[in-house]
Amino acid sequence: MKNSILSEISSPKDLKKLNISELNLLCGEIRETIIDTVSKNGGHLASSLGAVELTVALHRSFNTPEDAIIFDVGHQSYAHKLLTGRLHRFDTIRKKGGLSGFMRPDESEYDPFVTGHSSNSISAAYGILKANNLLGKNATAVAVIGDGAMTGGMAYEALNNAGAKKGNFIIVLNDNKMSISKNVGAVSRSFMRMRNGRRYHRLKFAVGNVLLKMGFFGKLIYNFINKIKDAARSFVYKNNIFAALGFNYLGPVDGHNIKELESIFEIAKSYDRPTVVHVVTKKGKGYSFAESSPNEYHGVSPFDVEKGALSKDKKDFSAIAGDTLCKIAEENTNICAITAAMAYGTGLYDFSKKYRDRFFDVGIAEEHAVTFSAGLAKGGMIPFFAVYSSFLQRGYDQIIHDAAIANLPVKLLIDRAGIVGEDGESHQGLFDVAFLSTVPNMNIYSPYCYKELEYLIETTAKNQELAAIRYPRGFEGKVENIDFTGEYTLLSAGSNRVLVTYGRLFSCALEAQSALNNFDIIKLNKVFPLSDDTISAIGKYKTVHIFEEGIRAGGIGEHIASKLSELSAECSLKIHAVDSVFVAHQSTAEALSEFKLDTKSMIAALE
Amino acid sequence: MKNSILSEISSPKDLKKLNISELNLLCGEIRETIIDTVSKNGGHLASSLGAVELTVALHRSFNTPEDAIIFDVGHQSYAHKLLTGRLHRFDTIRKKGGLSGFMRPDESEYDPFVTGHSSNSISAAYGILKANNLLGKNATAVAVIGDGAMTGGMAYEALNNAGAKKGNFIIVLNDNKMSISKNVGAVSRSFMRMRNGRRYHRLKFAVGNVLLKMGFFGKLIYNFINKIKDAARSFVYKNNIFAALGFNYLGPVDGHNIKELESIFEIAKSYDRPTVVHVVTKKGKGYSFAESSPNEYHGVSPFDVEKGALSKDKKDFSAIAGDTLCKIAEENTNICAITAAMAYGTGLYDFSKKYRDRFFDVGIAEEHAVTFSAGLAKGGMIPFFAVYSSFLQRGYDQIIHDAAIANLPVKLLIDRAGIVGEDGESHQGLFDVAFLSTVPNMNIYSPYCYKELEYLIETTAKNQELAAIRYPRGFEGKVENIDFTGEYTLLSAGSNRVLVTYGRLFSCALEAQSALNNFDIIKLNKVFPLSDDTISAIGKYKTVHIFEEGIRAGGIGEHIASKLSELSAECSLKIHAVDSVFVAHQSTAEALSEFKLDTKSMIAALE
Repeated sequence: MKNSILSEISSPKDLKKLNISELNLLCGEIRETIIDTVSKNGGHLASSLGAVELTVALHRSFNTPEDAIIFDVGHQSYAHKLLTGRLHRFDTIRKKGGLSGFMRPDESEYDPFVTGHSSNSISAAYGILKANNLLGKNATAVAVIGDGAMTGGMAYEALNNAGAKKGNFIIVLNDNKMSISKNVGAVSRSFMRMRNGRRYHRLKFAVGNVLLKMGFFGKLIYNFINKIKDAARSFVYKNNIFAALGFNYLGPVDGHNIKELESIFEIAKSYDRPTVVHVVTKKGKGYSFAESSPNEYHGVSPFDVEKGALSKDKKDFSAIAGDTLCKIAEENTNICAITAAMAYGTGLYDFSKKYRDRFFDVGIAEEHAVTFSAGLAKGGMIPFFAVYSSFLQRGYDQIIHDAAIANLPVKLLIDRAGIVGEDGESHQGLFDVAFLSTVPNMNIYSPYCYKELEYLIETTAKNQELAAIRYPRGFEGKVENIDFTGEYTLLSAGSNRVLVTYGRLFSCALEAQSALNNFDIIKLNKVFPLSDDTISAIGKYKTVHIFEEGIRAGGIGEHIASKLSELSAECSLKIHAVDSVFVAHQSTAEALSEFKLDTKSMIAALE
Repeated sequence: MKNSILSEISSPKDLKKLNISELNLLCGEIRETIIDTVSKNGGHLASSLGAVELTVALHRSFNTPEDAIIFDVGHQSYAHKLLTGRLHRFDTIRKKGGLSGFMRPDESEYDPFVTGHSSNSISAAYGILKANNLLGKNATAVAVIGDGAMTGGMAYEALNNAGAKKGNFIIVLNDNKMSISKNVGAVSRSFMRMRNGRRYHRLKFAVGNVLLKMGFFGKLIYNFINKIKDAARSFVYKNNIFAALGFNYLGPVDGHNIKELESIFEIAKSYDRPTVVHVVTKKGKGYSFAESSPNEYHGVSPFDVEKGALSKDKKDFSAIAGDTLCKIAEENTNICAITAAMAYGTGLYDFSKKYRDRFFDVGIAEEHAVTFSAGLAKGGMIPFFAVYSSFLQRGYDQIIHDAAIANLPVKLLIDRAGIVGEDGESHQGLFDVAFLSTVPNMNIYSPYCYKELEYLIETTAKNQELAAIRYPRGFEGKVENIDFTGEYTLLSAGSNRVLVTYGRLFSCALEAQSALNNFDIIKLNKVFPLSDDTISAIGKYKTVHIFEEGIRAGGIGEHIASKLSELSAECSLKIHAVDSVFVAHQSTAEALSEFKLDTKSMIAALE
């Protein structure tokens, strides 16, 4: 019977009744359910498949929801969702009104924290643990962090804060040997060394396990032996960052062996100091396509389970950005590309192969990426940092302080700008225009089609300007043969009403204009700063509708409105944007419709 | 004769002509000049005094400005300024039109990068170095980073990126054992261990030095011995984070011994891999008051050299914030205070002593601080994170992702909001209102006086709200007995013109109204979001002047203007704010005057 064991698990407490063979069967059912559902809904496949046994062992070893388990990044939490009362809704994952694809506190008491952006779990878990301590609650908090997330500076800040302190605090390093892109940098190399020392630790683990079962006396011996072993260990693990930061280190252990995991968690719980348990898992485990191409199966669109996910054949904005960079890099050897572990997602894969010395994958490290780019610019190169809009939020201070004050000509290629669809709140690219337009010296562009994106990459590369080029996830919409080289483009229908917009929504505006033909369109080619010409062109109209795929506060609509106010322009004005709310997961089309930013809404507003 | 040697140094090249006793005399002259100038202008004293010999040795060992030396944080760069052609202007430091108190590329070709915020030097230097490599320039880039700055996650991201790579890249760890606040966390403990292993390294260093002077054969032996020694070294340095991240590690070396420093730099230059030179310095070196109280002498106001800097006796906003937290923490044991290495600056010193278990200094780690606070809030505590406005820019993503999406009741105490005066561009708190008002669920307050600050801390502590309370550096201005409990306060003079403002500028508005008595004032008590009531109260006026001590784009002025536009309110409106420029160092009064935000400018605008 399908899910005969899984369907009996209404909460993690039920897991504790199962024996090991039932648990292994359960893991199979979980995998099947994940593969089946993701093949229909799309989603994050490979990471969740890798964390099945780990999730089962965690829920057996800890007492959730009193104990908080935080999966970092949350896309490894599908098994966790299935085991915490959400099996019956699992087919709704990533759909409007359905389960989120990440941890989401308002979805379940078993999801203690939002984990859509990486590297935040140690900070959050340590905060929850400290609160428990202060309030006298006998509950713990565990961070389950991927090796990729360990390259984020925030994780290090938290390790530094929690390290070398008294009290039990457990971090589980879920090391699947490659995170979103293949892991880069010294930490990754360090983990590799640690994995290779596994035989030594197997022994240590076995001995420790026996001794600990002997009670007080055994534990005494165990601790004594450990002290002696520390000296020896330093030969094997001298390059262990966790030890360097004052953590007790256990592992590596097989992340697909439930018994071994449970035993090591018991040992970890016995220490009165912060402890890292190093767990080695296989990304994509249990689905051969995903095991052999974990990168391609990190996040997927719906696919055929038997045939595997097909590689996308249609170019999207990301691919165009990558292709264009490749093209100009051939002519201009000063062009560089930087990514924060998103070589695939941002379309830089070809560039990384063709121009290896000018390609920099710096890890999940947006702060460093911005400042490193600024350093490259200072040294005379032309750096393009390709990054998702919502992740660039991590680099806000660096954009101000390291790029803008000295006006260094860094170029930001901001992918996934605007509504992103099924990934939901944490991934929406709705803030970039607002936060970037606070920054002096910043120039913001937002192409609506591939040709405009190409044009902007080519021209900003030639100019000594700090520039942000933002474009949406996915494909171009309606395209017309217009000139986008000026500050703005006017498409007149001879009306005294105008629709002002930029980026993807211009395609919607074209459709709405075709339908009604009773309003003009001003497309902002330069989104910020707005020239006096642009403002006065808008100020000539009696009625102004501004459509903006972004947050209202601090957006272009408000900039325009305030400028028009000061000119005492006598026009009636309406801003259509996302007003001080987070946008939940749903398809992009559904979100654009909900927030009245799609063609239909434009027609309704202007008919 | 005063500065008989220093005055002969017109560029670092001149340093290379001096012998060791002249160099030591020079260091004395540099110290005297720094102490003398800072006693008149105020500034960062202790860090710069600690880095004198280090700076001399660096400029002798490297070939500036072709080689880039980046001091992190830049407040240790005063000696560097004196040695790079800026002696004759040094008395203008931190004054309007004078030298900046930090590195500033448009001030000198010897200042390669802006370094007002900590932990950015490794990223910047590595970027410059990579550019040099790619462009075939035979020049290097050196990051000189304090031990405090090493607690910032960005530094780790850069180490991870640069570690374990080929090629020479030198980082100088200027370890003065305490950065702005006493260093906290595991990294600090790790450095302590490393310092304690110094005798071993002195030996290693001496041997190495002799061998290297023997030429090729000596170097061969040196490298061979090193390999053997690495095993032994792991006993001493197994907890070395640099080694863990693939860096070659040299030191620790006496940072006040020029010869020893130069020798170790020569060795460092000989490696074909990234290398850290660990230099131990004494913060405040050469000025006994500063040596014994380096924290108090980190940044100082003008003082008497003979008597030392007097501790401030007058309460300022920071002190009120700290006192109020202490007061409510006594009654409510859920109150916590968090700082990112700014216990002194943010007035939390008393709190840290009185409520040790509820006080958390997390290091220079704003990202972690925000998310750790969110974790504390999730766990049921009431966390107040006290932070300078410009440093909070580092936590923008965490505010959105970790606090706001789940609407966790974190409280941000934003110190140094608005114009900060002499610290200049990098430290201005001009962005917080704009970037925080993009964040859904965020509530922004901006008290103008101490009583209002107390009131806001007390009330937000009781409410389940995500709140930001922002207040300026320094003292309250004109105070009147008004009610600030509502959304806004109206001070009517029976006029059809209104001045809208918040925070410190309300004191100026009171003065301007006293002088003219021909306009009303609306003081925003709740700065964001603005209620419909507030907007309609403003919309009743014929003329609206909004004065805002912040960046215009995304500020409250624009929010108000856009709302009024949509209501078709027929008023003439003018926003007075800082419009898309960075504000250079000068006194706060000078800056408020330059940007037409002071009482006089209000009078001019409204008379």
